Amino acid sequence: MARRIVAAIGGNALGETLPEQRRAAGETARVLGGLIQGGDQIVLVHGSGPQIGLISAAMTGLARRDPEHPMAPLSVCTAMAQGYIGYDLQNALGEELLRRGIRRPVVTLLTQVEVDPADPAFDHPDKPIGPFLTEAEAREMECRGNPVMEDAGRGWRRAVASPQPKRVVELESIRTLLDGGSVVVAGGGGGIPVAAVGNALKGVGAVVDKDFTAALLARELNAQVLLILTGVAGVAIHYGKPNQRWLTHMTVPVAETYLSRGEFPPGSMRPKVAAGAAFAKSASGRRCVITDLAHAEEALRGQAGTTIA
Amino acid sequence: MARRIVAAIGGNALGETLPEQRRAAGETARVLGGLIQGGDQIVLVHGSGPQIGLISAAMTGLARRDPEHPMAPLSVCTAMAQGYIGYDLQNALGEELLRRGIRRPVVTLLTQVEVDPADPAFDHPDKPIGPFLTEAEAREMECRGNPVMEDAGRGWRRAVASPQPKRVVELESIRTLLDGGSVVVAGGGGGIPVAAVGNALKGVGAVVDKDFTAALLARELNAQVLLILTGVAGVAIHYGKPNQRWLTHMTVPVAETYLSRGEFPPGSMRPKVAAGAAFAKSASGRRCVITDLAHAEEALRGQAGTTIA
Repeated sequence: MARRIVAAIGGNALGETLPEQRRAAGETARVLGGLIQGGDQIVLVHGSGPQIGLISAAMTGLARRDPEHPMAPLSVCTAMAQGYIGYDLQNALGEELLRRGIRRPVVTLLTQVEVDPADPAFDHPDKPIGPFLTEAEAREMECRGNPVMEDAGRGWRRAVASPQPKRVVELESIRTLLDGGSVVVAGGGGGIPVAAVGNALKGVGAVVDKDFTAALLARELNAQVLLILTGVAGVAIHYGKPNQRWLTHMTVPVAETYLSRGEFPPGSMRPKVAAGAAFAKSASGRRCVITDLAHAEEALRGQAGTTIA
Repeated sequence: MARRIVAAIGGNALGETLPEQRRAAGETARVLGGLIQGGDQIVLVHGSGPQIGLISAAMTGLARRDPEHPMAPLSVCTAMAQGYIGYDLQNALGEELLRRGIRRPVVTLLTQVEVDPADPAFDHPDKPIGPFLTEAEAREMECRGNPVMEDAGRGWRRAVASPQPKRVVELESIRTLLDGGSVVVAGGGGGIPVAAVGNALKGVGAVVDKDFTAALLARELNAQVLLILTGVAGVAIHYGKPNQRWLTHMTVPVAETYLSRGEFPPGSMRPKVAAGAAFAKSASGRRCVITDLAHAEEALRGQAGTTIA
C-alpha cells in the first residue's frame, strides 16, 4: 500500500540554532525513513518562522553596518531559509535512508507560492516570526515600523502578514521528481510568497503558513495523507485548561465547528486544523493526521494523534 | 539543432547588492532566453563568492551579537546563497521566457558536490570570497584566523580552500528535470561542498569553483557546450599588457601549454580555461566558449569570444 504523504514540520520544532536544527532534522528523518522503507512517497514541507526572522536580523545588521546593502526583503530571507533548512533536512533524510540500505535521491527544490495581493491577511499581520522578544525589544521593533504580537502566551515576536497560497509555482517539477522516485523537500517556510505582475513574479512582504502550503501541495499531488508534525501529540479542545480533552478523530464538519468557535490558538493549532479540514474535504479518501514525531507511526494507523477525515 | 548547454555565470558579475543582482539576472536571462527560444536546453550554474562572503559576514555579525548562535559554516552560507541567487535568476529567466511566449518551468535545485578531504587545495586557500577589504581590514581578518589574499590586483579579500568537485550529488535529479523540459539553475556557488563520512554527507569549509562544477555537470549531462560567461569578451594572453593578444580559438593542447606556463591569473581566468580544456578533452564534439554576455550569441557561432575545442 504505497501511499503519497505530504509531511509538514514546524519551524519551531527545528530549533533556534544550527546544532538544534541538525538534531531535529535527524529525528524527523528517522520517522520519515521508516515510512519510506514501508513504501510511502514523501514530500516534506517545513516551516521557518524562527529561521526567517534570524536571517532577516542577520541581513538587517549587515545593512546597518554597511549602508550599501539594502535590507533583504522577507521573500529573499525565505529563499535563503529554504537553503539553510533544506540542506540539513535532505542530508539527514539521505543518511537515514542509506542506513536502512535505501538508495534514493533526496532533493530540495526552491519553491515559490503565488499569493493574492488583495488577500485581507495583508491588513492584519498575525504570523509570528523570529526570536522571542522582551517587551522592550518588542516596543523598539514596533517603533521601526514592524508590527509585533504576543505569540500564544510564549512572549512577543515580530508579526507579518500570512496570506493564503493560491498556486505552487514549481508544482510540475515537484511532481516530476516525486514520480521519478525522489524524496522532495519543497515549499519550505510555506514557500517564497510572490505575486504575478505582468510576466514577472515579484516577492511579497509576507510569510505563508507552511500548513496551508502543505495542504495545497497534498491536494495538487493527489496525496492520501497530510501529516502535520507539531510539538504536541494531538489536537485538544480547552488546551491547557482543567477541562482539556484530546480529540482522536474529527469529521470535517466537527473541525469546522470548532474553528468557527475559535477553539484553537491562531498561528499555532488553528492553521493546522484549518489546513487539515480543507484537505480532508477536498476529495474522498483524503485525511489529515496531526501529531508529534514520537507518535507519527501510531497516528498514521489511527492509534494516536488526531485524524481529520 | 537542439544543443544542451551548461552556462556558468560569475558571482562577481552578479553584483554586490540585491538591486545589482536583479539587473545582472535580467541581462543573463535575455541572453539565455534567446538560446532557449532557439531550441537549446540550458542548465545555469552561478558563482557566489561575493554573496557567500556577504552572508557569512551577516551570520557572523549575528553570532557576535547573540552568542547563542554559533557561526554559520561556509557550507551553510553556500546553501543560503543558492536560495538568495537562484530565486532571482529563475524569476528573471521565467519572466524573459514568458515575454517570448514560452511556458517552461524554470527551477532551482539545491546542489551539493562531493569533494576529497585530502584534496591538496585545503593546504592552500586561494579562492577569494566576500567583499574587497582595505589592508587594515584584511589584517584584522587574518588575526581572526581567516586567511586573506590579494585578488588579481583588485584588493584584499578573504581566501578559502577551493577543492575540485568529484561528484554532483543531485546529478540524477538535475538530469530528470532537464529531460522533462525544465530550465535548471543548479550547482550554485560551485555547489555546497560535502565529504562522505559513513552514510552521511558532511559540510566542508571550502568554496568550490563554479567553473569546475559547471564542467563536471556538462560532462555528466552529456552537454555539447560549456558556456562560461565572464566580465571580458574573451581570453587573452599577456592580459592588460602592451603585448596583450586575444585568443579566438585554442586547441586543448594549446590551452594546456598556456596553463602550464601560468599565463592566466588564478581565481580568475585560470580556472575557466582549465575547466574548459578539461571539458573539451573529455569527449569529441565538446567545446567550451568563454565570453561576456554581450558577445555570447556571436561567440556560440564562433564569431567572438574564445572557443576551446
